[in-house]
Amino acid sequence: MAQPLSHPARIGVFDSGFGGLTVLQALLRYIPSAEFLYLGDTARLPYGAKSRKTIARYAVSAAEFLLDQGSQYLVIACNTASALALDDIRAAAPVPVLGVVETGANAAKAHSHSGDVMVIATAATVESHAYSAACAERGLHAIEKACPLLVPLVEEGWIDHPVTSEVLRIYFSELLAQAREAALHPDTLLLGCTHYPLLRSQIEAALPESIHVIDSAEVTAAQVAAAVHLPAAVAAPPPPRFFATDSPEKFRRLGSRFLGQPIHHVELIDLESSTRA
Amino acid sequence: MAQPLSHPARIGVFDSGFGGLTVLQALLRYIPSAEFLYLGDTARLPYGAKSRKTIARYAVSAAEFLLDQGSQYLVIACNTASALALDDIRAAAPVPVLGVVETGANAAKAHSHSGDVMVIATAATVESHAYSAACAERGLHAIEKACPLLVPLVEEGWIDHPVTSEVLRIYFSELLAQAREAALHPDTLLLGCTHYPLLRSQIEAALPESIHVIDSAEVTAAQVAAAVHLPAAVAAPPPPRFFATDSPEKFRRLGSRFLGQPIHHVELIDLESSTRA
Repeated sequence: MAQPLSHPARIGVFDSGFGGLTVLQALLRYIPSAEFLYLGDTARLPYGAKSRKTIARYAVSAAEFLLDQGSQYLVIACNTASALALDDIRAAAPVPVLGVVETGANAAKAHSHSGDVMVIATAATVESHAYSAACAERGLHAIEKACPLLVPLVEEGWIDHPVTSEVLRIYFSELLAQAREAALHPDTLLLGCTHYPLLRSQIEAALPESIHVIDSAEVTAAQVAAAVHLPAAVAAPPPPRFFATDSPEKFRRLGSRFLGQPIHHVELIDLESSTRA
Repeated sequence: MAQPLSHPARIGVFDSGFGGLTVLQALLRYIPSAEFLYLGDTARLPYGAKSRKTIARYAVSAAEFLLDQGSQYLVIACNTASALALDDIRAAAPVPVLGVVETGANAAKAHSHSGDVMVIATAATVESHAYSAACAERGLHAIEKACPLLVPLVEEGWIDHPVTSEVLRIYFSELLAQAREAALHPDTLLLGCTHYPLLRSQIEAALPESIHVIDSAEVTAAQVAAAVHLPAAVAAPPPPRFFATDSPEKFRRLGSRFLGQPIHHVELIDLESSTRA
Protein backbone atom coordinates (compact mmCIF):
# COMPACT_ATOMS: atom_id res chain seq x y z
CA MET A 1 0.00 0.00 0.00
CA ALA A 2 1.51 3.34 -1.07
CA GLN A 3 2.11 5.83 1.74
CA PRO A 4 0.42 9.24 1.32
CA LEU A 5 2.86 11.95 0.35
CA SER A 6 3.80 14.32 3.19
CA HIS A 7 4.03 18.06 2.87
CA PRO A 8 7.59 19.20 2.13
CA ALA A 9 9.50 20.72 5.05
CA ARG A 10 9.05 24.51 5.05
CA ILE A 11 12.25 26.47 5.71
CA GLY A 12 12.33 30.22 6.29
CA VAL A 13 15.48 32.05 5.24
CA PHE A 14 16.11 35.57 6.50
CA ASP A 15 18.59 38.25 5.50
CA SER A 16 18.66 42.03 5.70
CA GLY A 17 18.91 42.14 1.91
CA PHE A 18 19.97 40.13 -1.13
CA GLY A 19 23.21 38.53 0.08
CA GLY A 20 21.37 35.68 1.81
CA LEU A 21 20.23 34.55 -1.63
CA THR A 22 23.70 32.97 -1.98
CA VAL A 23 22.68 30.80 0.99
CA LEU A 24 19.29 30.05 -0.59
CA GLN A 25 21.01 29.10 -3.86
CA ALA A 26 23.09 26.53 -1.96
CA LEU A 27 20.04 25.33 0.05
CA LEU A 28 18.09 24.67 -3.17
CA ARG A 29 20.94 22.42 -4.30
CA TYR A 30 21.35 20.62 -0.97
CA ILE A 31 17.65 20.20 -0.07
CA PRO A 32 15.69 20.21 -3.34
CA SER A 33 12.71 18.57 -1.65
CA ALA A 34 12.08 21.42 0.81
CA GLU A 35 9.85 24.46 0.43
CA PHE A 36 11.60 27.79 0.95
CA LEU A 37 10.45 31.22 2.05
CA TYR A 38 13.00 34.03 1.72
CA LEU A 39 12.59 37.38 3.46
CA GLY A 40 14.87 40.33 2.67
CA ASP A 41 14.35 43.30 5.01
CA THR A 42 15.43 45.63 2.21
CA ALA A 43 13.71 48.75 3.59
CA ARG A 44 15.99 48.68 6.64
CA LEU A 45 19.25 47.36 5.16
CA PRO A 46 22.11 47.37 5.78
CA TYR A 47 22.00 46.04 9.33
CA GLY A 48 25.82 46.28 9.44
CA ALA A 49 25.90 49.90 10.63
CA LYS A 50 23.15 49.65 13.27
CA SER A 51 23.22 49.02 17.04
CA ARG A 52 22.69 45.57 18.58
CA LYS A 53 19.35 46.58 20.06
CA THR A 54 17.98 47.85 16.75
CA ILE A 55 19.25 44.80 14.87
CA ALA A 56 17.65 42.44 17.41
CA ARG A 57 14.31 44.22 17.14
CA TYR A 58 14.37 44.09 13.34
CA ALA A 59 15.50 40.45 13.20
CA VAL A 60 12.88 39.25 15.68
CA SER A 61 10.09 40.94 13.69
CA ALA A 62 11.40 39.24 10.53
CA ALA A 63 11.55 35.84 12.27
CA GLU A 64 7.99 36.31 13.52
CA PHE A 65 6.82 36.98 9.97
CA LEU A 66 8.45 33.79 8.69
CA LEU A 67 6.93 31.80 11.57
CA ASP A 68 3.48 33.26 10.80
CA GLN A 69 4.00 31.92 7.27
CA GLY A 70 4.45 28.41 8.65
CA SER A 71 8.24 28.04 8.71
CA GLN A 72 9.36 24.90 10.58
CA TYR A 73 13.04 25.88 10.49
CA LEU A 74 14.71 29.27 10.38
CA VAL A 75 18.03 29.96 8.67
CA ILE A 76 19.51 33.33 9.63
CA ALA A 77 21.51 34.04 6.48
CA CYS A 78 22.41 37.55 7.67
CA ASN A 79 25.81 37.59 9.35
CA THR A 80 25.03 40.74 11.32
CA ALA A 81 21.77 39.32 12.70
CA SER A 82 23.43 35.95 13.40
CA ALA A 83 26.22 37.73 15.23
CA LEU A 84 24.08 40.10 17.27
CA ALA A 85 20.55 38.73 17.52
CA LEU A 86 20.60 34.91 17.43
CA ASP A 87 19.72 34.56 21.11
CA ASP A 88 16.82 37.01 20.73
CA ILE A 89 15.52 35.12 17.68
CA ARG A 90 15.82 31.75 19.45
CA ALA A 91 13.95 33.16 22.46
CA ALA A 92 11.11 34.29 20.16
CA ALA A 93 10.98 31.22 17.87
CA PRO A 94 9.62 27.79 18.90
CA VAL A 95 11.41 26.09 15.96
CA PRO A 96 15.08 25.23 15.28
CA VAL A 97 17.17 28.26 14.29
CA LEU A 98 20.56 28.02 12.54
CA GLY A 99 22.76 31.06 11.97
CA VAL A 100 25.63 31.53 9.54
CA VAL A 101 28.12 32.46 12.28
CA GLU A 102 27.91 29.08 13.99
CA THR A 103 27.80 27.11 10.73
CA GLY A 104 30.89 29.03 9.55
CA ALA A 105 32.71 28.35 12.82
CA ASN A 106 31.76 24.65 12.60
CA ALA A 107 33.26 24.47 9.11
CA ALA A 108 36.42 26.29 10.23
CA LYS A 109 36.82 23.75 13.04
CA ALA A 110 36.52 20.91 10.51
CA HIS A 111 39.02 22.42 8.03
CA SER A 112 41.74 24.12 10.08
CA HIS A 113 44.82 22.10 11.04
CA SER A 114 46.71 24.94 12.73
CA GLY A 115 43.65 26.06 14.73
CA ASP A 116 44.27 29.64 13.54
CA VAL A 117 41.51 31.18 11.44
CA MET A 118 41.02 34.54 9.67
CA VAL A 119 37.55 36.07 9.29
CA ILE A 120 36.51 38.92 6.99
CA ALA A 121 33.12 40.58 7.52
CA THR A 122 31.24 43.88 7.82
CA ALA A 123 32.18 46.39 10.54
CA ALA A 124 29.26 45.48 12.83
CA THR A 125 29.95 41.74 12.60
CA VAL A 126 33.62 42.29 13.44
CA GLU A 127 32.81 44.72 16.27
CA SER A 128 30.50 42.10 17.78
CA HIS A 129 33.42 39.60 17.88
CA ALA A 130 30.80 36.89 17.35
CA TYR A 131 33.13 34.90 15.06
CA SER A 132 36.00 35.11 17.58
CA ALA A 133 33.66 33.89 20.29
CA ALA A 134 32.20 31.07 18.16
CA CYS A 135 35.72 30.01 17.10
CA ALA A 136 37.03 30.17 20.69
CA GLU A 137 34.17 27.89 21.83
CA ARG A 138 35.52 25.35 19.32
CA GLY A 139 39.15 25.72 20.40
CA LEU A 140 40.20 27.94 17.46
CA HIS A 141 41.99 31.30 17.46
CA ALA A 142 40.36 33.79 15.10
CA ILE A 143 41.51 37.18 13.89
CA GLU A 144 38.87 39.32 12.28
CA LYS A 145 38.96 42.18 9.80
CA ALA A 146 36.21 44.57 8.70
CA CYS A 147 36.15 44.98 4.89
CA PRO A 148 33.46 47.63 4.33
CA LEU A 149 34.30 48.22 0.65
CA LEU A 150 33.56 44.67 -0.51
CA VAL A 151 29.75 44.85 -0.36
CA PRO A 152 29.55 48.05 -2.44
CA LEU A 153 32.09 46.63 -4.92
CA VAL A 154 29.88 43.54 -5.37
CA GLU A 155 26.78 45.73 -5.68
CA GLU A 156 28.58 47.94 -8.24
CA GLY A 157 29.17 44.74 -10.23
CA TRP A 158 32.96 45.22 -10.10
CA ILE A 159 33.54 41.49 -9.50
CA ASP A 160 36.41 40.74 -11.89
CA HIS A 161 37.88 44.25 -11.70
CA PRO A 162 41.38 45.64 -10.97
CA VAL A 163 40.07 47.98 -8.25
CA THR A 164 38.53 45.01 -6.43
CA SER A 165 41.80 43.06 -6.75
CA GLU A 166 43.71 46.03 -5.33
CA VAL A 167 41.25 46.48 -2.44
CA LEU A 168 41.52 42.74 -1.64
CA ARG A 169 45.33 42.94 -1.83
CA ILE A 170 45.35 45.83 0.69
CA TYR A 171 42.86 44.17 3.04
CA PHE A 172 44.71 40.81 3.01
CA SER A 173 48.16 42.36 3.45
CA GLU A 174 46.80 44.13 6.56
CA LEU A 175 45.13 40.93 7.79
CA LEU A 176 48.21 38.74 7.26
CA ALA A 177 50.39 41.35 9.01
CA GLN A 178 47.92 41.27 11.91
CA ALA A 179 48.28 37.45 12.01
CA ARG A 180 52.09 37.66 12.04
CA GLU A 181 52.04 40.20 14.88
CA ALA A 182 49.82 37.85 16.87
CA ALA A 183 52.23 34.96 16.05
CA LEU A 184 49.35 33.03 14.44
CA HIS A 185 49.63 30.65 11.47
CA PRO A 186 46.23 30.84 9.81
CA ASP A 187 45.38 28.16 7.25
CA THR A 188 41.71 29.10 6.83
CA LEU A 189 39.76 32.21 5.77
CA LEU A 190 36.10 32.39 6.69
CA LEU A 191 33.90 34.60 4.47
CA GLY A 192 31.76 36.23 7.16
CA CYS A 193 29.39 38.04 4.80
CA THR A 194 26.97 36.53 2.29
CA HIS A 195 28.07 38.97 -0.44
CA TYR A 196 31.59 37.61 -0.40
CA PRO A 197 30.97 34.26 -2.16
CA LEU A 198 30.54 36.28 -5.38
CA LEU A 199 34.20 37.38 -4.96
CA ARG A 200 35.49 33.90 -4.12
CA SER A 201 37.80 33.52 -7.15
CA GLN A 202 39.29 37.00 -6.63
CA ILE A 203 39.73 36.29 -2.91
CA GLU A 204 41.49 32.97 -3.59
CA ALA A 205 43.76 34.68 -6.14
CA ALA A 206 44.74 37.37 -3.60
CA LEU A 207 45.72 34.85 -0.89
CA PRO A 208 48.63 32.42 -0.48
CA GLU A 209 47.66 28.95 -1.78
CA SER A 210 48.05 27.51 1.71
CA ILE A 211 44.90 29.34 2.90
CA HIS A 212 41.63 27.42 2.54
CA VAL A 213 38.60 29.64 1.85
CA ILE A 214 35.31 28.74 3.55
CA ASP A 215 32.18 29.97 1.79
CA SER A 216 29.49 30.51 4.43
CA ALA A 217 26.64 29.91 1.96
CA GLU A 218 27.89 26.44 0.99
CA VAL A 219 28.69 25.23 4.51
CA THR A 220 25.43 26.62 5.92
CA ALA A 221 23.38 24.72 3.33
CA ALA A 222 25.29 21.52 4.08
CA GLN A 223 24.63 21.87 7.83
CA VAL A 224 20.96 22.77 7.40
CA ALA A 225 20.55 19.68 5.19
CA ALA A 226 22.03 17.56 7.97
CA ALA A 227 19.79 19.12 10.64
CA VAL A 228 16.42 19.21 8.89
CA HIS A 229 14.18 16.16 9.34
CA LEU A 230 12.77 15.33 5.92
CA PRO A 231 9.78 13.05 5.38
CA ALA A 232 10.65 9.92 3.36
CA ALA A 233 8.30 10.70 0.50
CA VAL A 234 7.19 14.24 -0.20
CA ALA A 235 5.07 16.00 -2.77
CA ALA A 236 7.11 18.14 -5.15
CA PRO A 237 7.74 21.44 -3.37
CA PRO A 238 6.35 24.69 -4.76
CA PRO A 239 9.00 27.17 -5.96
CA PRO A 240 10.56 29.49 -3.34
CA ARG A 241 8.50 32.50 -2.25
CA PHE A 242 10.23 35.85 -1.91
CA PHE A 243 9.25 38.64 0.47
CA ALA A 244 10.82 42.10 0.68
CA THR A 245 10.14 45.21 2.73
CA ASP A 246 11.06 47.58 -0.12
CA SER A 247 10.97 47.78 -3.93
CA PRO A 248 10.07 44.30 -5.29
CA GLU A 249 11.36 45.43 -8.69
CA LYS A 250 14.83 46.15 -7.30
CA PHE A 251 14.77 42.85 -5.40
CA ARG A 252 14.02 40.95 -8.61
CA ARG A 253 16.74 42.78 -10.52
CA LEU A 254 19.60 42.64 -7.97
CA GLY A 255 18.50 39.42 -6.29
CA SER A 256 18.73 37.36 -9.47
CA ARG A 257 22.50 37.97 -9.51
CA PHE A 258 22.90 36.53 -5.99
CA LEU A 259 20.48 33.63 -6.55
CA GLY A 260 22.05 32.77 -9.91
CA GLN A 261 18.61 32.40 -11.53
CA PRO A 262 15.73 34.73 -12.39
CA ILE A 263 13.33 35.84 -9.64
CA HIS A 264 9.88 36.37 -11.12
CA HIS A 265 7.69 37.44 -8.24
CA VAL A 266 8.42 39.27 -4.97
CA GLU A 267 5.77 40.08 -2.36
CA LEU A 268 6.06 43.47 -0.63
CA ILE A 269 5.42 43.29 3.13
CA ASP A 270 5.48 45.80 6.00
CA LEU A 271 7.38 44.66 9.09
CA GLU A 272 7.33 48.01 10.87
CA SER A 273 3.62 48.10 11.65
CA SER A 274 3.83 44.54 13.00
CA THR A 275 7.04 45.01 15.00
CA ARG A 276 6.34 44.19 18.64
CA ALA A 277 8.67 46.76 20.23
CA MET B 1 16.64 102.91 24.69
CA ALA B 2 18.13 99.48 24.04
CA GLN B 3 15.92 96.99 22.18
CA PRO B 4 15.28 93.68 23.96
CA LEU B 5 17.29 90.84 22.43
CA SER B 6 15.25 88.50 20.23
CA HIS B 7 15.51 84.75 20.26
CA PRO B 8 17.90 83.46 17.60
CA ALA B 9 16.31 81.90 14.51
CA ARG B 10 15.96 78.14 14.97
CA ILE B 11 16.93 76.07 11.92
CA GLY B 12 16.34 72.32 11.64
CA VAL B 13 18.77 70.37 9.47
CA PHE B 14 17.87 66.86 8.36
CA ASP B 15 19.90 64.07 6.78
CA SER B 16 19.65 60.29 6.71
CA GLY B 17 23.04 60.12 8.41
CA PHE B 18 26.27 62.04 8.97
CA GLY B 19 26.90 63.54 5.54
CA GLY B 20 24.58 66.48 6.18
CA LEU B 21 27.01 67.60 8.89
CA THR B 22 29.11 69.04 6.04
CA VAL B 23 26.10 71.31 5.38
CA LEU B 24 25.79 72.14 9.09
CA GLN B 25 29.51 72.96 9.22
CA ALA B 26 28.99 75.50 6.43
CA LEU B 27 25.77 76.84 8.01
CA LEU B 28 27.59 77.50 11.31
CA ARG B 29 30.09 79.62 9.38
CA TYR B 30 27.46 81.48 7.31
CA ILE B 31 24.84 82.05 10.04
CA PRO B 32 26.68 82.04 13.38
CA SER B 33 23.77 83.83 15.07
CA ALA B 34 21.23 81.04 14.44
CA GLU B 35 20.35 78.07 16.62
CA PHE B 36 20.67 74.68 14.89
CA LEU B 37 19.02 71.31 15.41
CA TYR B 38 20.50 68.41 13.43
CA LEU B 39 18.69 65.12 12.97
CA GLY B 40 20.42 62.08 11.46
CA ASP B 41 18.04 59.17 10.80
CA THR B 42 20.93 56.76 11.32
CA ALA B 43 18.78 53.72 12.18
CA ARG B 44 17.29 53.77 8.69
CA LEU B 45 20.24 54.96 6.57
CA PRO B 46 21.15 54.85 3.80
CA TYR B 47 18.06 56.24 2.07
CA GLY B 48 19.88 55.88 -1.26
CA ALA B 49 18.79 52.29 -1.87
CA LYS B 50 15.13 52.67 -0.82
CA SER B 51 11.94 53.36 -2.78
CA ARG B 52 10.43 56.85 -3.19
CA LYS B 53 7.44 55.99 -1.02
CA THR B 54 9.58 54.71 1.86
CA ILE B 55 11.94 57.68 1.65
CA ALA B 56 9.01 60.14 1.71
CA ARG B 57 7.51 58.46 4.77
CA TYR B 58 10.83 58.54 6.62
CA ALA B 59 11.64 62.13 5.64
CA VAL B 60 8.21 63.46 6.63
CA SER B 61 8.48 61.83 10.07
CA ALA B 62 11.92 63.43 10.49
CA ALA B 63 10.60 66.85 9.42
CA GLU B 64 7.71 66.54 11.88
CA PHE B 65 10.17 65.82 14.69
CA LEU B 66 12.21 68.95 13.85
CA LEU B 67 9.01 71.04 13.69
CA ASP B 68 7.89 69.68 17.08
CA GLN B 69 11.26 70.93 18.39
CA GLY B 70 10.41 74.46 17.22
CA SER B 71 12.27 74.70 13.89
CA GLN B 72 11.31 77.83 11.93
CA TYR B 73 13.21 76.73 8.80
CA LEU B 74 14.04 73.29 7.50
CA VAL B 75 17.16 72.44 5.51
CA ILE B 76 16.96 69.03 3.82
CA ALA B 77 20.67 68.20 3.69
CA CYS B 78 19.99 64.68 2.38
CA ASN B 79 20.24 64.56 -1.40
CA THR B 80 18.05 61.47 -1.65
CA ALA B 81 15.27 63.03 0.44
CA SER B 82 15.59 66.36 -1.41
CA ALA B 83 15.36 64.52 -4.71
CA LEU B 84 12.44 62.25 -3.83
CA ALA B 85 10.49 63.75 -0.94
CA LEU B 86 10.72 67.56 -1.01
CA ASP B 87 7.09 68.00 -2.10
CA ASP B 88 5.90 65.65 0.64
CA ILE B 89 7.94 67.53 3.26
CA ARG B 90 6.67 70.92 2.02
CA ALA B 91 3.09 69.63 2.18
CA ALA B 92 3.62 68.56 5.80
CA ALA B 93 5.63 71.60 7.00
CA PRO B 94 4.16 75.09 7.59
CA VAL B 95 7.66 76.67 7.49
CA PRO B 96 10.11 77.38 4.63
CA VAL B 97 11.93 74.28 3.39
CA LEU B 98 15.14 74.34 1.33
CA GLY B 99 16.66 71.22 -0.21
CA VAL B 100 20.17 70.61 -1.46
CA VAL B 101 19.03 69.66 -4.97
CA GLU B 102 17.55 73.08 -5.70
CA THR B 103 20.38 75.00 -4.01
CA GLY B 104 22.90 72.94 -6.05
CA ALA B 105 21.00 73.63 -9.28
CA ASN B 106 20.84 77.35 -8.42
CA ALA B 107 24.62 77.42 -7.97
CA ALA B 108 25.17 75.50 -11.22
CA LYS B 109 23.03 78.09 -13.04
CA ALA B 110 25.16 80.88 -11.55
CA HIS B 111 28.51 79.25 -12.46
CA SER B 112 28.04 77.50 -15.79
CA HIS B 113 28.83 79.44 -18.97
CA SER B 114 28.24 76.56 -21.40
CA GLY B 115 24.95 75.58 -19.76
CA ASP B 116 26.15 71.96 -19.61
CA VAL B 117 26.53 70.48 -16.14
CA MET B 118 27.69 67.10 -14.78
CA VAL B 119 26.24 65.68 -11.56
CA ILE B 120 27.60 62.82 -9.43
CA ALA B 121 25.38 61.29 -6.74
CA THR B 122 24.06 58.06 -5.19
CA ALA B 123 22.11 55.57 -7.32
CA ALA B 124 18.70 56.63 -5.96
CA THR B 125 19.36 60.34 -6.52
CA VAL B 126 20.46 59.67 -10.10
CA GLU B 127 17.53 57.33 -10.78
CA SER B 128 15.15 60.05 -9.59
CA HIS B 129 16.62 62.45 -12.21
CA ALA B 130 15.86 65.23 -9.74
CA TYR B 131 19.07 67.11 -10.64
CA SER B 132 18.34 66.85 -14.38
CA ALA B 133 14.85 68.20 -13.75
CA ALA B 134 16.05 71.03 -11.47
CA CYS B 135 18.77 71.95 -14.01
CA ALA B 136 16.31 71.80 -16.93
CA GLU B 137 13.98 74.20 -15.07
CA ARG B 138 16.92 76.64 -15.03
CA GLY B 139 17.79 76.16 -18.72
CA LEU B 140 20.77 73.86 -18.10
CA HIS B 141 21.56 70.45 -19.58
CA ALA B 142 22.70 67.97 -16.95
CA ILE B 143 24.21 64.52 -17.25
CA GLU B 144 24.21 62.44 -14.12
CA LYS B 145 26.30 59.52 -12.90
CA ALA B 146 25.78 57.22 -9.92
CA CYS B 147 29.03 56.74 -7.95
CA PRO B 148 28.07 54.17 -5.29
CA LEU B 149 31.65 53.48 -4.15
CA LEU B 150 32.41 57.02 -2.99
CA VAL B 151 30.35 56.99 0.22
CA PRO B 152 31.94 53.75 1.52
CA LEU B 153 35.42 55.04 0.53
CA VAL B 154 34.80 58.19 2.62
CA GLU B 155 33.44 56.11 5.49
CA GLU B 156 36.48 53.78 5.27
CA GLY B 157 38.60 56.93 5.70
CA TRP B 158 40.37 56.33 2.36
CA ILE B 159 40.28 60.04 1.48
CA ASP B 160 43.81 60.65 0.20
CA HIS B 161 44.26 57.10 -1.10
CA PRO B 162 45.34 55.60 -4.46
CA VAL B 163 42.24 53.35 -4.65
CA THR B 164 40.00 56.40 -4.30
CA SER B 165 41.98 58.24 -7.00
CA GLU B 166 41.61 55.22 -9.31
CA VAL B 167 37.86 54.92 -8.62
CA LEU B 168 37.44 58.67 -9.35
CA ARG B 169 39.53 58.32 -12.55
CA ILE B 170 37.25 55.49 -13.76
CA TYR B 171 34.03 57.28 -12.82
CA PHE B 172 35.09 60.57 -14.47
CA SER B 173 36.40 58.91 -17.64
CA GLU B 174 32.97 57.27 -18.00
CA LEU B 175 31.18 60.53 -17.24
CA LEU B 176 33.26 62.61 -19.68
CA ALA B 177 32.75 59.94 -22.39
CA GLN B 178 29.01 60.17 -21.72
CA ALA B 179 29.23 63.98 -22.16
CA ARG B 180 31.12 63.64 -25.47
CA GLU B 181 28.56 61.15 -26.80
CA ALA B 182 25.80 63.62 -25.94
CA ALA B 183 27.81 66.43 -27.64
CA LEU B 184 27.82 68.42 -24.39
CA HIS B 185 30.60 70.73 -23.18
CA PRO B 186 30.34 70.61 -19.41
CA ASP B 187 32.21 73.28 -17.43
CA THR B 188 30.68 72.46 -14.02
CA LEU B 189 30.52 69.39 -11.76
CA LEU B 190 27.87 69.36 -9.06
CA LEU B 191 28.62 67.18 -5.99
CA GLY B 192 25.16 65.67 -5.47
CA CYS B 193 25.95 63.90 -2.19
CA THR B 194 26.94 65.44 1.14
CA HIS B 195 29.77 62.91 1.60
CA TYR B 196 31.56 64.14 -1.49
CA PRO B 197 32.88 67.49 -0.14
CA LEU B 198 35.38 65.42 1.89
CA LEU B 199 36.82 64.21 -1.46
CA ARG B 200 36.84 67.66 -3.07
CA SER B 201 40.64 67.90 -3.54
CA GLN B 202 40.82 64.39 -5.03
CA ILE B 203 37.86 65.15 -7.29
CA GLU B 204 39.44 68.39 -8.54
CA ALA B 205 42.72 66.55 -9.17
CA ALA B 206 40.93 63.89 -11.24
CA LEU B 207 39.18 66.42 -13.51
CA PRO B 208 40.36 68.76 -16.28
CA GLU B 209 41.11 72.23 -14.86
CA SER B 210 38.34 73.73 -16.97
CA ILE B 211 35.68 72.03 -14.80
CA HIS B 212 34.40 74.05 -11.85
CA VAL B 213 33.40 71.93 -8.82
CA ILE B 214 30.31 72.97 -6.86
CA ASP B 215 30.22 71.81 -3.25
CA SER B 216 26.57 71.41 -2.24
CA ALA B 217 27.28 72.07 1.45
CA GLU B 218 28.87 75.46 0.77
CA VAL B 219 26.26 76.71 -1.69
CA THR B 220 23.36 75.47 0.43
CA ALA B 221 24.63 77.39 3.47
CA ALA B 222 25.04 80.54 1.38
CA GLN B 223 21.47 80.29 0.07
CA VAL B 224 19.95 79.50 3.48
CA ALA B 225 21.77 82.55 4.88
CA ALA B 226 20.17 84.67 2.15
CA ALA B 227 16.68 83.24 2.78
CA VAL B 228 16.51 83.25 6.58
CA HIS B 229 15.10 86.37 8.21
CA LEU B 230 17.38 87.20 11.13
CA PRO B 231 16.42 89.58 13.93
CA ALA B 232 18.71 92.64 14.12
CA ALA B 233 19.97 91.90 17.61
CA VAL B 234 19.89 88.39 19.02
CA ALA B 235 20.98 86.64 22.18
CA ALA B 236 24.00 84.38 21.66
CA PRO B 237 22.66 81.09 20.29
CA PRO B 238 23.06 77.87 22.25
CA PRO B 239 25.35 75.27 20.62
CA PRO B 240 23.80 72.95 18.00
CA ARG B 241 21.73 70.03 19.29
CA PHE B 242 22.20 66.62 17.68
CA PHE B 243 19.55 63.91 17.40
CA ALA B 244 20.04 60.41 16.00
CA THR B 245 17.82 57.36 15.62
CA ASP B 246 20.68 54.91 16.32
CA SER B 247 23.92 54.65 18.33
CA PRO B 248 24.78 58.13 19.72
CA GLU B 249 28.33 56.88 20.33
CA LYS B 250 28.83 56.07 16.65
CA PHE B 251 27.26 59.40 15.67
CA ARG B 252 29.73 61.27 17.89
CA ARG B 253 32.69 59.31 16.54
CA LEU B 254 31.91 59.41 12.79
CA GLY B 255 30.02 62.70 12.82
CA SER B 256 32.95 64.68 14.17
CA ARG B 257 34.85 63.93 10.94
CA PHE B 258 32.06 65.43 8.82
CA LEU B 259 31.43 68.41 11.12
CA GLY B 260 35.15 69.15 11.45
CA GLN B 261 34.82 69.62 15.21
CA PRO B 262 34.06 67.37 18.18
CA ILE B 263 30.45 66.39 18.89
CA HIS B 264 29.97 65.95 22.62
CA HIS B 265 26.35 65.00 23.09
CA VAL B 266 23.82 63.21 20.87
CA GLU B 267 20.20 62.54 21.84
CA LEU B 268 18.75 59.18 20.81
CA ILE B 269 15.19 59.45 19.46
CA ASP B 270 12.66 56.99 18.01
CA LEU B 271 10.96 58.13 14.79
CA GLU B 272 9.29 54.81 14.01
CA SER B 273 6.75 54.88 16.80
CA SER B 274 5.81 58.46 15.86
CA THR B 275 5.65 57.92 12.08
CA ARG B 276 2.20 58.85 10.85
CA ALA B 277 1.88 56.22 8.09
